[in-house]
Amino acid sequence: MTKLYGCLEGGGTKFVCAVGSRPGQILEEIRFPTTTPAETITRAINFFKNYPLSAIGLATFGPLDLNPASPSYGSITATPKNGWSNINILEEFHHAFDLPITLETDVNAAAFGEWFWVPDNHKLDSMVYFTIGTGIGAGIVIKGKVVHGLTHPEAGHMRLPHDRKKDPFPGICPFHGDCFEGLASGPAMNRHWRQAAELLPKDHPAWDLEATYIANALVNEIVIVSPQRIVLGGGVMENIQLFPLIRHKVLEMVNGYIASPVFSGTLVEYIVPPALGKQSGMLGALALARTIK
Amino acid sequence: MTKLYGCLEGGGTKFVCAVGSRPGQILEEIRFPTTTPAETITRAINFFKNYPLSAIGLATFGPLDLNPASPSYGSITATPKNGWSNINILEEFHHAFDLPITLETDVNAAAFGEWFWVPDNHKLDSMVYFTIGTGIGAGIVIKGKVVHGLTHPEAGHMRLPHDRKKDPFPGICPFHGDCFEGLASGPAMNRHWRQAAELLPKDHPAWDLEATYIANALVNEIVIVSPQRIVLGGGVMENIQLFPLIRHKVLEMVNGYIASPVFSGTLVEYIVPPALGKQSGMLGALALARTIK
Repeated sequence: MTKLYGCLEGGGTKFVCAVGSRPGQILEEIRFPTTTPAETITRAINFFKNYPLSAIGLATFGPLDLNPASPSYGSITATPKNGWSNINILEEFHHAFDLPITLETDVNAAAFGEWFWVPDNHKLDSMVYFTIGTGIGAGIVIKGKVVHGLTHPEAGHMRLPHDRKKDPFPGICPFHGDCFEGLASGPAMNRHWRQAAELLPKDHPAWDLEATYIANALVNEIVIVSPQRIVLGGGVMENIQLFPLIRHKVLEMVNGYIASPVFSGTLVEYIVPPALGKQSGMLGALALARTIK
Repeated sequence: MTKLYGCLEGGGTKFVCAVGSRPGQILEEIRFPTTTPAETITRAINFFKNYPLSAIGLATFGPLDLNPASPSYGSITATPKNGWSNINILEEFHHAFDLPITLETDVNAAAFGEWFWVPDNHKLDSMVYFTIGTGIGAGIVIKGKVVHGLTHPEAGHMRLPHDRKKDPFPGICPFHGDCFEGLASGPAMNRHWRQAAELLPKDHPAWDLEATYIANALVNEIVIVSPQRIVLGGGVMENIQLFPLIRHKVLEMVNGYIASPVFSGTLVEYIVPPALGKQSGMLGALALARTIK
């Protein structure tokens, strides 16, 4: 009999829970709004209780404490999301289920999902997944493992060139002002242009500026980690006119320095949209559940 | 009988070759200037021929082709160092010796050396070594392995905030102008201040500006990779007044965002000088020779 796994993608706005074995083999999926932690987590647990699961993969917004040696291991740490700071979601699931359960950030799970399920990615030693939406983050998969260290990566907060003469917008990150997320997240674009970014015409200068910030960030990720592919997901990247702009600017900025045939090309197979579409995070949680050791 | 290993650190100015088994157990070491590839490599090979070696570790300036599937695997690629482009140093050593031989960049070897030989580093899952000197680079060791991907990391070429009102210096990188290396390498400092940087008084504003660029780069490495320790080596970092300036600026820039007890402290054990001093690269090549699989 095929084993069943539970997977959860918990965002600041909604939670998605599903049960299945692989992409295309999802038995049931439910979605509900993120309210209080007690209500939201109970709803998820009650859903999973209906199935004879082999393991559960949780992928949630962060920051998370993923250090097994820490007393708050498994918790959401300091989040602006009201009521959710210091909620130990992993512990609540362990109380409810006598099963292997694993917790990752949503972006790390999406990175793992794109690596695990997509044959063309699975052969790579090193891959990065960026989400560029309400927030910005990047997960790294090296030799089949999600990269952790002191904490999990927080690449949305990298520091970028910002020419205030060309763009006086000060950024909206409450911690860093004009870090990557402060300049280029969806909410940053909305604030900057005083309208919903997705309604801006495709030839509006906002897109060129957005592509510039994203390209700078990609160059930094490229020179620091040297990934073999970069996947760009998240709501902002649904504006697909950004892809050719970003690829062009990355090539221009790298300026022939990286000694790889990839950089003699168009980057069309190097900087790519998610093969799993909006399912990367959810299917990543499923892949994590399947690979718990 | 203790096995003997050969190790080589090849820089743009000088080559150092040594034979030994571990730190403190070096039988002989020679140093000679980097001249033509033929002369320099022959001299190194002749030295190693005097010993019954078990393996050889080569750590040289880059960029290097370290992709085993590439036809130019083992070569120095496009270097400004006259005559050295497309020299396949690994192949020349394989012709001369029927032994396991490994090649790494000098900065990756130094990162591995600091991880392998220093007990307090060896327990870490994730560590970064920066060299900040004639050039700038950073090697990453994750779970005991040097990180490679598309090529090797080239973190000297990351893009940083550069306030041209405060610092109109345009940078000296021939590829990128004001990338990290263009702004903050030893030669960049010399050009900027029109004198040898190490002769600038310790309270000269040059050091504060230098610490600002380095701190920006460290913040980017921290948010992208989340290393558990950062070692700063290279000639510029011999100006040890930089360490407290950098630690202070990194804390200020991170501004409480990283949820780790390390960032509630002074970073005095997080951002550190090399425990192996100027020997990190050489002893890293030795460690690589010992661990060839």
